[in-house]
Formats: sequence, structure tokens, C-alpha cells
Amino acid sequence: MDIPIIRDVLEESNARAQENRALFDRHGVFAVNIMSSPGSGKTTLLAKTIPLLQQRGLSCAVIEGDITSTLDSERLKPLGIPVVQANTEPFGGDCHVGSHLVQAALKHFDLARVNVLFIENIGNLVCPAEFYLGEDRKVVVLSITEGEDKPLKYPLMFRECSACLLSKMDLAPHLDVNVETLKENLRRTNGRLTVIPISAKTGEGIERWVEWIVKKT
Amino acid sequence: MDIPIIRDVLEESNARAQENRALFDRHGVFAVNIMSSPGSGKTTLLAKTIPLLQQRGLSCAVIEGDITSTLDSERLKPLGIPVVQANTEPFGGDCHVGSHLVQAALKHFDLARVNVLFIENIGNLVCPAEFYLGEDRKVVVLSITEGEDKPLKYPLMFRECSACLLSKMDLAPHLDVNVETLKENLRRTNGRLTVIPISAKTGEGIERWVEWIVKKT
Repeated sequence: MDIPIIRDVLEESNARAQENRALFDRHGVFAVNIMSSPGSGKTTLLAKTIPLLQQRGLSCAVIEGDITSTLDSERLKPLGIPVVQANTEPFGGDCHVGSHLVQAALKHFDLARVNVLFIENIGNLVCPAEFYLGEDRKVVVLSITEGEDKPLKYPLMFRECSACLLSKMDLAPHLDVNVETLKENLRRTNGRLTVIPISAKTGEGIERWVEWIVKKT
Repeated sequence: MDIPIIRDVLEESNARAQENRALFDRHGVFAVNIMSSPGSGKTTLLAKTIPLLQQRGLSCAVIEGDITSTLDSERLKPLGIPVVQANTEPFGGDCHVGSHLVQAALKHFDLARVNVLFIENIGNLVCPAEFYLGEDRKVVVLSITEGEDKPLKYPLMFRECSACLLSKMDLAPHLDVNVETLKENLRRTNGRLTVIPISAKTGEGIERWVEWIVKKT
């Protein structure tokens, strides 16, 4: 009895994702689903990235996925862009942003005025990788403090993504982590992954990441 | 139709957990379910903790939960203690260690010779908090690199646990994280949580953590 029900859930999820996709196509929105472990620096990255995209004439919007709280949305308020907080707590504390939640959030935007939409997923290196939301690209942020082995231990996430931002590079001198081994593990897991080392503190790699987005829009 | 099926799954999960509990009681095993985000340092912590427990005359065993790979088990090999790798990939890549997996792993131990059993859960601050495995205590490791806000954003994990180890304290001088604010957020989320700042690098807090375990066995 389980199997048909699980299939229904995935079919339902993909149907909502396709509707989101159609909306993005209609309005020329480039949608990026950003995923990572908790505390890798996704929100900090967005706060650094969005002003640079605005300087290139691209207008941005954000869906902030969290189980609970509006902490991340509040951190983005100073940017003056449209932000919708999508909390999963009313849906049983889901461990990932679902396509139905994105669909509900999209109703709050004037998509004709949005060039780049960031969907900041819930901090979780496992479950969010399994769900298509209708996005153009999936991106994973991996803090180098998490160690070299994460691509080998959480392979689905790194296989699903087009780009991996290695964050907190400024901490490298204080860690036992070998960044070259980490990059090699990323290559072994997904040979087509674009790997961009970044630091929100020093600014390292942020321009390259902004270029990556600009070229795709 | 969904609701009875979901209930069955949880009932099944709790039934297996109760059977694990009965085994622990019969053999006088103190079982600790260790949870955290990916890369907080759970395995490193175990490698530091277990020799100190052995010095106190306590014999240890470990169930290493991962989606895939035996990387963590191999890191514990030099300790010469019984370790079972429990991978969820054959079960659909589950995002948490289930009580059925613990039950299967327990068959590989001579529990009469185990005083302390560590169950290292999958790196995930969300889903593992929802499942009772039959353990005596749940413990969460939170790397201070993850930021002050994690207890507020992932409250269930911090409410379910008896102790929180704040790891990578040696990095504090290089971070913008305010450890006092983090502690205050932990207190607000769970006033009964024992908070122990630790560093595997400097040894800070490791003795206090070992004491915490010894007192409970």
C-alpha cells in the first residue's frame, strides 16, 4: 500500500514544480535554489550578492525557507527587495522547502519585475536535494569548516547541483581541512560541478559567483 | 488515508525503539544518541572521548550512522572498539538513523561487554530529532561556526536533547559569532539543557563532557 501513496506525493510535488517553472518562463525569472547545512552562510551570501546584481541592472527577490522564525528575512530587509518568509512549521516542520510552498510564496511577488529569484532552502544537506521546485539551477554552499568528506557522505546533494560555493575560506589558515582534497572529492562526486571558493568576510570569489549568475540570466 | 499510515510508521518505529530500550536495560548499556549538522565534529569528538572513558574502566561501542560510505567507522578503527556502520542508502537514503537500523546493528555487539554505546546519527539538525531510538540521552553537537541563531531556527533538536556541546571553540577569535548570545538562545529554547563548550583541538571541555557521561552510567 505504501508505494502508490509515495508516488502520489512525488507526482503532486513535481506537478506544483512544473507550474512554478511555467510561471518563471512566462516572466523571464531566473530561479536559484540555494541549499546547504545549517550555518554555512547562505543568508550572508545573499546580502552580499544582491546589491552587486542590482548594480548590473538585475532586480532580485528572495523566498526565505525556514522551519520557524523570520530571522533570515529580517536580515535581508535593509536590501529593500521583495522577500517572502516560507515557514514549514505549519506543515509539520518539514525538513525542506516544498514546491507547494514556493507556489504559495510566488503569489506575493510581482514576477514581471523580478529577474533573479533566490529560494533559500532549509539548512539540511540531505532532504532538500530530493525535491525539484521548478528552479533553473540548484546551488550548494559548503562551509570549509565542515571538512573534506562531505561530498562523499552526502553525494546526492552535490550531484544535483550545478555549482558549489566553498564558504568561509578566510578560516582556512585556522583549520586542519585540506581544501585541495575537498575540491578533489567534489570532482569525484560530480565532474561537471562549478566550484567557487568564497568568503563573505574578505570578498573572495563573490565577483566570480555574481558573474556565474549574470551569464545565466 | 494518509493519517493511519503515518501513525503506523511512527508506531512501528517506537515499537523497535522500545525493544532496543529493553536490550539496553537488560545489559546495563548507557546509550547516547549524538546528533548535529554535517561537519560539527561528532566523529572527532568520539575519537577523543572514548579513550578517556576506557581509562575510567568503561567499555564503549559505536553505531556509525551515515547515508553512505564507511569513512567515519574507519576513523574509529584505531580505538580497537566494536563499531558497526549503519548506512541508510539501502533504505532510500534516509535522512536519520531509524530504530530498525539500530536494532539490526545491535545484533553485531556483545552487549554484556558494553557500558556506553554511542549512536552517531546522520548529520542533520532536523529529522533525527523526531525519532526515539531507545537511547538514554540525546545530545546535540553545535559548531560555533554555525552562528548564534541555530537554537531559534531548529528548536525541536535543542528541546529534545539533554546536553549541547558547543564545538570548535578554538575558532571563536576568528568568528563574528557571539558565544554569549548563542548560550542565551540555547537557554531560551530549553532551560534544562546542559551546555558544554568544547574544542577537540585544545581539549577544552572534554573532561567535563566525560564527567557528564560517567555520572549518568
